[in-house]
Amino acid sequence: MSQLDVFICEVGPRDGLQNAHHLMPTEAKKAWISALAAAGLREIEVGSFVPAKVIPAMADTGEVVAHAKTIAGLKVVALAPNFKGFQRALESGAHKITFPVSASHQHSVSNVRMTPDEMVAQVRQACELRLTLPAGQRPEIEGAVATAFGCTLQGEVPEDEVVRIAKLLADAGVDSVALADTVGYANPAQMKRLYRKVKDAVGAKLDGVHLHNTRGLGLANALAAYEEGARAFDSSMGGLGGCPFAPGASGNVVTEDLAFMFESMGLRTGIDFDALLRAREILVNGIPEEPVYGHFAGAGLPKGFRRAAQEGVPGKPAVAPVV
Amino acid sequence: MSQLDVFICEVGPRDGLQNAHHLMPTEAKKAWISALAAAGLREIEVGSFVPAKVIPAMADTGEVVAHAKTIAGLKVVALAPNFKGFQRALESGAHKITFPVSASHQHSVSNVRMTPDEMVAQVRQACELRLTLPAGQRPEIEGAVATAFGCTLQGEVPEDEVVRIAKLLADAGVDSVALADTVGYANPAQMKRLYRKVKDAVGAKLDGVHLHNTRGLGLANALAAYEEGARAFDSSMGGLGGCPFAPGASGNVVTEDLAFMFESMGLRTGIDFDALLRAREILVNGIPEEPVYGHFAGAGLPKGFRRAAQEGVPGKPAVAPVV
Repeated sequence: MSQLDVFICEVGPRDGLQNAHHLMPTEAKKAWISALAAAGLREIEVGSFVPAKVIPAMADTGEVVAHAKTIAGLKVVALAPNFKGFQRALESGAHKITFPVSASHQHSVSNVRMTPDEMVAQVRQACELRLTLPAGQRPEIEGAVATAFGCTLQGEVPEDEVVRIAKLLADAGVDSVALADTVGYANPAQMKRLYRKVKDAVGAKLDGVHLHNTRGLGLANALAAYEEGARAFDSSMGGLGGCPFAPGASGNVVTEDLAFMFESMGLRTGIDFDALLRAREILVNGIPEEPVYGHFAGAGLPKGFRRAAQEGVPGKPAVAPVV
Repeated sequence: MSQLDVFICEVGPRDGLQNAHHLMPTEAKKAWISALAAAGLREIEVGSFVPAKVIPAMADTGEVVAHAKTIAGLKVVALAPNFKGFQRALESGAHKITFPVSASHQHSVSNVRMTPDEMVAQVRQACELRLTLPAGQRPEIEGAVATAFGCTLQGEVPEDEVVRIAKLLADAGVDSVALADTVGYANPAQMKRLYRKVKDAVGAKLDGVHLHNTRGLGLANALAAYEEGARAFDSSMGGLGGCPFAPGASGNVVTEDLAFMFESMGLRTGIDFDALLRAREILVNGIPEEPVYGHFAGAGLPKGFRRAAQEGVPGKPAVAPVV
């Protein structure tokens, strides 16, 4: 498998569909995930183990994980909102399980009815449980510091609190820490400053960012994070997504536009644009009432454009192994 | 007048309306320009002195310039596509006259029926004419290197050619040189590399960038240019604009989103967001059939947001005087 310079994790099947106004049928989800993998996405967050009565769109996550695991070379990610969700994710056999932990006290209590420190305790419990499993059955665990750049409920989120939560997660035993702009409040200057602070606190465990495009700054924030050393980026096809518990937040950064930005900069994402646009068609056909966003899909590639991989740009060594 | 860290030149009344599918009545243009100035935009490109039969939307540019000149503190900019247009712009009394000079040979010939070098000769003629005028009647002259990042007709535009044209313009006597991503081909890595090369060639005369958002990279490119030292940015309200002679190019970077990005980074733009959204309403009412774009207008300011100026952020000294 060729080396990549930047790793894009598609979160549309989770963050996008969880916040869509319509339900995508399970079979359509499977077809979409297969198409995303065929386009070169090597990591896909396929669902969330939340109670079906809370988020009906995630009721079929177990079945979707099972399908995704049949796709060769794909790292299958599932979200766990608490220890119980983690146990269900374990049973599903997901390769990687992500815990969002809000640095905003108000957002945390509103979202999962736990304080940030109570959430960290659940993550610690998950990491401890993992140690009791046979070596081949241990999933990766990621701790994502949510609302790291601000919160629609409490406004400013102190940077020291973000650093503190990130440190607690790293100490709890997660494999990686990410910074999430859950409600689209980040700006590039803040991104650089905060990424650096968290990097100083947790070192190489800081792996990437989860960005929203609420105010159009998604790609600029991705660029800022890249310049500070981030190499893993969450995004969602068509800009689906948002946070149902944070009013006004809508839309992850658009996978198509993000991949185009990095490839145009000469950075290898492993993504094939023709196949990516076919996956977008499958998304649109699978949930036709839902609006999709993004600029690249309409504009296409510039005349004479060559993908980074095709140019044989040396790039940087891959920063993390992919399954 | 307070110092600014970043200068935004609103080009919607020229680049936006020139490419709109509908005509905005002259009185509506005047009201819009007044509202833009009231929102804190201190430089507005209000029109283009092209033949009315070529671009009917620009037929009233003389009258619009006359109105704009009545607004205290506003630097009134007009575009001249050639020496004849420059003479008309001079007669109008515009404070600043911008010449676009394509670095793409094919785009230049297609757009103005002159080679890049023939266009440079017209700019030189304009600079020479200016020297014959009384001191108080000499407008600023800017040379904008158009299609500097690529061209829909010829594809790649050699960077050496961009540097050569920029140098010729500086030597011809323009006050400032700008780099224009006329058709939305730029990426942040290219922006940094090319901005640096041109800066090395023309020094402080390199003043800023004119960006399009065709593939969604407008703000990321603006950030990249800022990091290389650019402090002057063209943008258009609602993302109006494009280039009628370059198929597929659509939409300047959105003023509202650009101003929000810089202000959120703690950089003073002088722009008042409430007044900016009122100006957007006036735009929409003035040309109701035309689509407008942008994220900020829908999402609004984050909770607890403070403008850079209100925080008393020291910032950097203003890089250029404003009229």
